[in-house]
Amino acid sequence: MQLSKRIQEMQFSPIRKLVPFGEEAKKRGVKIYHLNIGQPDIKTPETFMEAVKKYDDKVLKYATSPGLDSLIDSFITYYKEWNIDFDKDEIIITNGGSEAIMFALLAICDAGDEVIIPEPFYTNYNGFSAVAGTNVVPFLTKAENGFHLPAKEEITSKITNKTRAIMVSNPGNPTGVVYTKEELRLLADICKEHDLYLIADEVYREFVYDGEEYTSALFLEDIRDRVILIDSVSKRYSACGARIGLVASKNKVLMNEIMKLAQSRLCVPTIEQVGCANLINTPKSYFDEVLNEYEERRNILHKKLSEMPGVICEKPKGAFYVVAKLPIESGEDFAKWLLTDFSLDNKTVMVAPAEGFYATEGLGKNEIRISYCLNTKDLEDAMNILAIALEKYRNL
Amino acid sequence: MQLSKRIQEMQFSPIRKLVPFGEEAKKRGVKIYHLNIGQPDIKTPETFMEAVKKYDDKVLKYATSPGLDSLIDSFITYYKEWNIDFDKDEIIITNGGSEAIMFALLAICDAGDEVIIPEPFYTNYNGFSAVAGTNVVPFLTKAENGFHLPAKEEITSKITNKTRAIMVSNPGNPTGVVYTKEELRLLADICKEHDLYLIADEVYREFVYDGEEYTSALFLEDIRDRVILIDSVSKRYSACGARIGLVASKNKVLMNEIMKLAQSRLCVPTIEQVGCANLINTPKSYFDEVLNEYEERRNILHKKLSEMPGVICEKPKGAFYVVAKLPIESGEDFAKWLLTDFSLDNKTVMVAPAEGFYATEGLGKNEIRISYCLNTKDLEDAMNILAIALEKYRNL
Repeated sequence: MQLSKRIQEMQFSPIRKLVPFGEEAKKRGVKIYHLNIGQPDIKTPETFMEAVKKYDDKVLKYATSPGLDSLIDSFITYYKEWNIDFDKDEIIITNGGSEAIMFALLAICDAGDEVIIPEPFYTNYNGFSAVAGTNVVPFLTKAENGFHLPAKEEITSKITNKTRAIMVSNPGNPTGVVYTKEELRLLADICKEHDLYLIADEVYREFVYDGEEYTSALFLEDIRDRVILIDSVSKRYSACGARIGLVASKNKVLMNEIMKLAQSRLCVPTIEQVGCANLINTPKSYFDEVLNEYEERRNILHKKLSEMPGVICEKPKGAFYVVAKLPIESGEDFAKWLLTDFSLDNKTVMVAPAEGFYATEGLGKNEIRISYCLNTKDLEDAMNILAIALEKYRNL
Repeated sequence: MQLSKRIQEMQFSPIRKLVPFGEEAKKRGVKIYHLNIGQPDIKTPETFMEAVKKYDDKVLKYATSPGLDSLIDSFITYYKEWNIDFDKDEIIITNGGSEAIMFALLAICDAGDEVIIPEPFYTNYNGFSAVAGTNVVPFLTKAENGFHLPAKEEITSKITNKTRAIMVSNPGNPTGVVYTKEELRLLADICKEHDLYLIADEVYREFVYDGEEYTSALFLEDIRDRVILIDSVSKRYSACGARIGLVASKNKVLMNEIMKLAQSRLCVPTIEQVGCANLINTPKSYFDEVLNEYEERRNILHKKLSEMPGVICEKPKGAFYVVAKLPIESGEDFAKWLLTDFSLDNKTVMVAPAEGFYATEGLGKNEIRISYCLNTKDLEDAMNILAIALEKYRNL
């Protein structure tokens, strides 16, 4: 029996290779600080389970394909606070941001079409592209300037007659970059000039530090019908396990087509939608606390990285990741070594080699991604360990 | 901006066209009996919400990509009762049976590959095929012999070098057919002789009437590594809104590849999995009652259809649907007329035109699908109304 070519060409999660080494380390009694994952340790607002526990329908029915009215309404209210107006038929609830990206690609691309993405990028974009049969065409952004966009020509030089969209994560996973208003303007101009969609993955919208201004792709009035918004409650409300996201666009023709995809998979789970519809009633103070917490973590992380000789890392302005360039040859070898050959007071750290976040062969080899999903005390300890490990590794 | 060809070629739900007419009828104060939907009215076992309400993790975390251990274990226990042995790495939890079918197609087919399916078939197979870029190649089964399989040659004549699998729903949606041991044997032989997979959609496994023997594709020892099982809690536990299904196979190489797809969408919702893991503790009496109820409904439905002059409908042995051939030209026109031009004591019925369940142009035009998701009293009333309506329609 054959397997499909597409499945054989797909990657496993780039972390997966390291998992057995982590498990062995744990068996040896070594404590591992996980700097490798995007699972926040922040409490989910109680509003979620409060609504879930009140659910008392005797029959757990299918929800409607575009999503529960109450949930869509709560998102409409949420976006209003960002001065973004959505009609009901401009939002479709999805199984996390993941399905939203999938729907966007399927609706605008046929097999062989191309989507331009700044690299490094969220690795699962590869998986969705493999399923859709589309090609990721990367353009490079660099640690040295905080992974901001390059000159216009470097982006437009990637455009062919197969290009259908530019896709960006803003704030960025894995880089923590927050694009400026001018950068969004640049993307908008390119999309208009070359008749492209802009797929805007804004699941970290709230995680912007230093009072930096945030520019949503939906703020660009002149390309509103070109913008496909990807969103999710996963990070905003630390509700990753709910798998509730959405795809939204002011382009009603497009949304009507996406409805076919929503119908073909029937619906998104009912109870998770009921819980998420009540997240809108989470007190504002929740976000203030969360944002303060993350900003503090970001400060610790950046300070510690800055103190490590040879490490290049601009202070990230958003999300809860950073990609750091290390004075070593291979982030993958280093990440493995941290688990197999190193420990300090019986503790070590697990990091994600950044190579898997690049599409271009050979790039990112000496970089790692660190997420700051640990509390400040653990994070400080983990970063001290990383500093000592790096020094030791360089002197091997 | 372009839309993809594939999305433009996809269908909306075949029911969708009728919805506005149904809504208008409701506005006129007409009560509609819904014989068109697959949403059971049966109570979901309380075991589900009991477990959900006990969930008290402070952080609603991502589940693991293949699914929660507790849920996979509960399915392993469930299959043991059917004398089917699964190892843990042979099951991956999915977003309903829908995602399970999607994963199966993506893992074994590239774009342009073919899957052979008896028609009429579950319409969403079209949607999944469109996403995967695969072609549905139908072979005909007929109302006159209860939609059982045709002679071997009629199936093998459809096989080309692009064929990767045969896909069947057993018990069948929309036909209610339950394949015999001999029919399963036939499919197994074809799969072996032509090196094909057998995608077995068995989400209605429990819904078999008259004490009829049920043969799961997994009973076929000699093609166990060719069988890809699609399953779901939706119908078994009347938990459609949970959207918990699974893809399973004794072919570990295949399952390892499918894990890439599972990883790329991260995981299935945590809380729904927690609830479903406790469904295994539902008392046996639940199923006995449900089966009795459905068998009674099936009897009413079949008796009433048999009494309608010119209607062809073999007594279905399973699931909770029937496809009936009517002595009219167009099931679609009739279904519309029921909503726009007919009512009896201010009541009417909504049925699904069967045309949408066929891939071959022109087939099924004079057929309708009726689901028996109504209680016996309503079902009896609805069928009486349908009988009078049909008579009136024929005399128009």
